[in-house]
Amino acid sequence: MKLTWHRRSLRLRHPFNIARREREDKVDKEILLIQIEHDGLVGWGESAPTSYYHQSLDSAEAALARIAGMLGQDPLAFDAVLGSLWEQYGNETATIAAIDGAMHDLAGKLLGVPLWRFLGLDRARMPLTSFTIGIDDLEVIRQKTREAAEYPILKVKVGTPQDDAILSVIREEAPNKVVRVDANCGWNSANVLERCRTLSKKYRIEFIEQPTAAGAHDALPEVRAAGLCPIVADESCVGVQGVLACAGVFDGINIKLSKCGGIRRAIQMIHTARSAGLKIMLGCMIESSVGIAAAAHLGPLVDWVDLDGHLLLANDPFEGIGGRGGRLTLNDRPGLGLVER
Amino acid sequence: MKLTWHRRSLRLRHPFNIARREREDKVDKEILLIQIEHDGLVGWGESAPTSYYHQSLDSAEAALARIAGMLGQDPLAFDAVLGSLWEQYGNETATIAAIDGAMHDLAGKLLGVPLWRFLGLDRARMPLTSFTIGIDDLEVIRQKTREAAEYPILKVKVGTPQDDAILSVIREEAPNKVVRVDANCGWNSANVLERCRTLSKKYRIEFIEQPTAAGAHDALPEVRAAGLCPIVADESCVGVQGVLACAGVFDGINIKLSKCGGIRRAIQMIHTARSAGLKIMLGCMIESSVGIAAAAHLGPLVDWVDLDGHLLLANDPFEGIGGRGGRLTLNDRPGLGLVER
Repeated sequence: MKLTWHRRSLRLRHPFNIARREREDKVDKEILLIQIEHDGLVGWGESAPTSYYHQSLDSAEAALARIAGMLGQDPLAFDAVLGSLWEQYGNETATIAAIDGAMHDLAGKLLGVPLWRFLGLDRARMPLTSFTIGIDDLEVIRQKTREAAEYPILKVKVGTPQDDAILSVIREEAPNKVVRVDANCGWNSANVLERCRTLSKKYRIEFIEQPTAAGAHDALPEVRAAGLCPIVADESCVGVQGVLACAGVFDGINIKLSKCGGIRRAIQMIHTARSAGLKIMLGCMIESSVGIAAAAHLGPLVDWVDLDGHLLLANDPFEGIGGRGGRLTLNDRPGLGLVER
Repeated sequence: MKLTWHRRSLRLRHPFNIARREREDKVDKEILLIQIEHDGLVGWGESAPTSYYHQSLDSAEAALARIAGMLGQDPLAFDAVLGSLWEQYGNETATIAAIDGAMHDLAGKLLGVPLWRFLGLDRARMPLTSFTIGIDDLEVIRQKTREAAEYPILKVKVGTPQDDAILSVIREEAPNKVVRVDANCGWNSANVLERCRTLSKKYRIEFIEQPTAAGAHDALPEVRAAGLCPIVADESCVGVQGVLACAGVFDGINIKLSKCGGIRRAIQMIHTARSAGLKIMLGCMIESSVGIAAAAHLGPLVDWVDLDGHLLLANDPFEGIGGRGGRLTLNDRPGLGLVER
């Protein structure tokens, strides 16, 4: 298997801000597109490294330069290949996810089946995806909400001093949509109960994601005892080792391929979470259809889908996964089902 | 997909007895071999229903008669097909395992790949299987142990008034082999600590399986605190729902396809058990190479393999999985890799 990669600049339609980061106005995000070639076929993968998890484009490329010599000759040798990568580059989860995704794309193409069939899944069980409204000035939020008219589920970024005002605008523009919120660690022990109670009672919230910082869970039992809505872990649940620690603390977990290291690890997390009675959400970073398609193939296994990274872009280099009206499509093309634009 | 099945009488080389059942001398066991045909290819599965789990050949055949109309047209539609079976025949785990196994065999043949590659596994990681010595008169046990000379790991059935004498014979005949024991619920709260301590100290025991009855776990904390050897759940861990209940109570679990309902459920159990820090053993019933081959394909994912059902038979209708010297082989033929004798 021959590995190559290149940096790609994704252009956002709007600046995208969350509670956990300094606000910024830039609309460009760089990711790595990787290709694995074998037997005349090409599998695509995407690495969207995250500084919060101590990853960078540079650390990803340094790992890829070594990984190129480690892939062997069998695109179906997932455990043998990925096992070596975990041993040597275990922190580069976004990059392992890219290799895992490209191997799955290649495996499907090699066998002539779409990935959802290779995985034995029922594509009829795909939930609708939410569309994310980032933190911004209220009038911009109003405008974004209007532009998102086609999406039946909104995920609203909160964790700011004006969360109430944000949701007030959302509800003015979208009185009947399903609304979930994501605080990205933005609240704390002192205010989390009041914030959760106020928002969920005033604005009908489907669930609340990551209300407080990872590890800062001391106020969560009281929040859950209040019976407001499910509380979902994101930053508090990074990989397969983190799942059971969330049982009894959260109601669900948000699985992202770039956090956990790809489809195979995500399936382990899904199985573990189901056994523990945790609800499961699939999430993403700002990434193109390549990363989104890999995650979307696990949609039939989960409760909630938040795979809109590609819908936020002005220059997605691929298509095939859909998303209009919140409907992601697992198509009949082999592998990930992607087509270059 | 066209489903057919027939009863098959498996003939044991020796009568086979365990602590949990009335002793019997019969050497015949009936199972069901099932075939799923699609597109000119045939997938094989085996149902070994167990009265302990309220299953019988009759209940299995009644389920199969209905299941024949439920299989649809796609051998890769595991979740859609098996999901319906779970809803309607959830107690017939041995028969769902047979359908699951036949679909996996068929999927591999359809795609032209052996099942271990379809599952992305590394066949180099297959542990050696143990060979089981059932409960019998001491001189028969001595003879069986001699006949088992080629097998490096013995699993010895205990849970009788003469466990000490049984292991004494085993150790006379096999002083250096790895020996694990299986009490099949044969001990109780009053004697389990003494039995475990005596056997493990006198005879070097690798692990002890199911010392007391399912649910009768009150003495197990003391046994585990004694730090003798790992304690493994079999009857105490039936399906995917039972795994997490074993965490903190046992050191490991014994997964059998006929208990849990097949490869897909077994993978869920494996993932859950790994997350919970439980060791994993793969076991079997008295069954032919068809059922054993399905289980053996998960060998690379587990710690301990006890897949010798086919090795106990005088008339195994299939071959392909090997077993000489304890070495099970995942071969290069598509699907389960079986050949009719």
